[in-house]
Amino acid sequence: MGVPGCLRQVLRRKAGDVLFLAPQRFFSTSFKASDLQIELNKHLKPKPDSSKLVFGKNFTDHMLTVEWSKENGWGKPHIKPFQNLSLHPASSALHYSVELFEGMKAFRGIDQRIRLFRPMLNMDRMLRSSQRACLPAFDRSELLECIRQLIRVDQDWVPSSSAASLYIRPILIGTEPSLGVAISNHALLFVILGPVGPYFATGSFSPVSLLADPQFVRAWMGGVGNYKVGSNYGPTIYVQAEAAKLGCQQVLWLYGDDHQITEVGTMNIFLFWKDQEGDMELVTPPLNGIILPGVIRQSLLDLARKWGEFKVSERVITMSDLIKGLEEKRLKEIFGSGTACVVCPVDRILYQGKNYHIPTMENGPEIAKRFLKELTDIQYGRIASDWAQAVC
Amino acid sequence: MGVPGCLRQVLRRKAGDVLFLAPQRFFSTSFKASDLQIELNKHLKPKPDSSKLVFGKNFTDHMLTVEWSKENGWGKPHIKPFQNLSLHPASSALHYSVELFEGMKAFRGIDQRIRLFRPMLNMDRMLRSSQRACLPAFDRSELLECIRQLIRVDQDWVPSSSAASLYIRPILIGTEPSLGVAISNHALLFVILGPVGPYFATGSFSPVSLLADPQFVRAWMGGVGNYKVGSNYGPTIYVQAEAAKLGCQQVLWLYGDDHQITEVGTMNIFLFWKDQEGDMELVTPPLNGIILPGVIRQSLLDLARKWGEFKVSERVITMSDLIKGLEEKRLKEIFGSGTACVVCPVDRILYQGKNYHIPTMENGPEIAKRFLKELTDIQYGRIASDWAQAVC
Repeated sequence: MGVPGCLRQVLRRKAGDVLFLAPQRFFSTSFKASDLQIELNKHLKPKPDSSKLVFGKNFTDHMLTVEWSKENGWGKPHIKPFQNLSLHPASSALHYSVELFEGMKAFRGIDQRIRLFRPMLNMDRMLRSSQRACLPAFDRSELLECIRQLIRVDQDWVPSSSAASLYIRPILIGTEPSLGVAISNHALLFVILGPVGPYFATGSFSPVSLLADPQFVRAWMGGVGNYKVGSNYGPTIYVQAEAAKLGCQQVLWLYGDDHQITEVGTMNIFLFWKDQEGDMELVTPPLNGIILPGVIRQSLLDLARKWGEFKVSERVITMSDLIKGLEEKRLKEIFGSGTACVVCPVDRILYQGKNYHIPTMENGPEIAKRFLKELTDIQYGRIASDWAQAVC
Repeated sequence: MGVPGCLRQVLRRKAGDVLFLAPQRFFSTSFKASDLQIELNKHLKPKPDSSKLVFGKNFTDHMLTVEWSKENGWGKPHIKPFQNLSLHPASSALHYSVELFEGMKAFRGIDQRIRLFRPMLNMDRMLRSSQRACLPAFDRSELLECIRQLIRVDQDWVPSSSAASLYIRPILIGTEPSLGVAISNHALLFVILGPVGPYFATGSFSPVSLLADPQFVRAWMGGVGNYKVGSNYGPTIYVQAEAAKLGCQQVLWLYGDDHQITEVGTMNIFLFWKDQEGDMELVTPPLNGIILPGVIRQSLLDLARKWGEFKVSERVITMSDLIKGLEEKRLKEIFGSGTACVVCPVDRILYQGKNYHIPTMENGPEIAKRFLKELTDIQYGRIASDWAQAVC
């Protein structure tokens, strides 16, 4: 602040970091991977059996942290032993949900190389979420490079199995230590990693049942449903429990008086059917403000458009469209899409007291399986693609 | 678990707490104030000048914490030195906004006694929020008694001024250390306190200007707008910043195609006007699912109904109703209501590119000032009321 960078460098060389730079630090509009401070964990944990992994319960030996303040900008990124966070009890993330995150995976390929899947799409979305949360911007390439380095440090944690992977959770939280509902002047970005198993037991492809109840609404126009912010998730837990009470595994989120289908659980949703004109069509709701722009969603659309074998549409679909397609035997498959499962077939929807059987499994599911094979072939390096980027 | 409680008690007497009960503990459906463990702070902070307090930035010397787990239920409540929390980096509050809070105040009366204002209304709402967040239930009277004891420990922090008070922030967060979007098996309830100044400088009663833009929606039917959960607050910060860019101090939250007025900033909203039938009416939006059931909101309704001098209504009001009332010179006052300010007059609304002057100040504001006087008289013990409950 106030002293030109070149002069500060000279002064720093003379005075030493600690004496001259405390409390004055360089204001930084992004952190840089080249500044990474690495402290290795001396107490490595045993790795869990990769055939018995439960999602999100195991964490690796290290984590990435980067602090930010309005006054000093971004600090240096740190890779350090996985450990608890020390947070002021008034932190804005805890009181006002000033928080956002990403979900991505690293895969160990058949050639033993570790790859990320379209990671810049996650970095782009994280930056958009940060702007909506009034949290600081950062250089997406620098964050990605820091994540790559974290994965390299914990590379032994990436399962040697094409039925498992390393889940990556970047998160940015407000750490403002005061109770006004206002822009946070302090924030913490961190990344944790953990090995995760297959969403489905190997070989199987189990369909899920959905509760579609218009009294529960996930996101709404004018809100934040199109950002990956914590606010969109906590309120769904109660609804998920209501679905379970009615014997359903997930929630099909409806919107509006016409009961538009929007998402399923924490996934995007796709229908494959013969449309009313008699053409085969893959359809998913449009990015109209209440739909999360999923990386797998985008990838399925991109793949299907590349195939060019059927219509590919992003448009509003209502429950009555869906039921009409079902009654006229035009509906072939319904499936969710997301990082956890790639695709997740649906076989039943409970709507207005009536169970509707969805013939996804009877139809293969041809398209869902084809997507799953093509994407996992890319993720595990069985086919070359610029969607898969080697980490090491 | 599996060992009957009575047997565990016998065994505990024989084996001693530490040896036998680690890790086995009694399951508790609520914590009890009689179990309070108190560790006093040996390093008391200097108290800030109570004429220069900024809301939410100063904290007292102690805090209350109570841990909960699905396995063991509630632990013992602790009053201990104010300190940072140590949280697992996967804690569900940080990732998925599994969090809820309350806001209340303690006042030092003209007789030097310290009083709380209708605190059971906060306890009731906190329990409802906890149920919606799938966090544990607790005995509301026990929590209130713990809060009373915390205030007694930090009683020197309650300002000796009828222009200031002690803000109380009870909060319950999910501390589940795993990344599945699911019911938290671990939680932490804590309470922090801090002295706060008057919302308005003494003697003044400054009105605020509002941006009413239907493109921003605070809460929606089928969501959680009627609970005091973190999810409702973070997403508003960006909108508040947009209002500031347009020269407005707060946001008037609209809802629906008919632009219903719902809340203002983080407050409930009231209109005082002559209705279309020519009767004087105090009106606020109904508790239809998108309105926070405010303690001050309830108190203004209760007071006005006790007065019995004009109609008191909880019903939907749209922007066109408001503008019609303004044009026909029937609208007298608009004000927000909340714990921070009691009442907060509005003098301007920017809506669809047009500034509407609201004559609140020209009309006294007679009703807003009367509410403010009556409630602060109760809060500071100038008049006796069972709404004000002495702490010490």
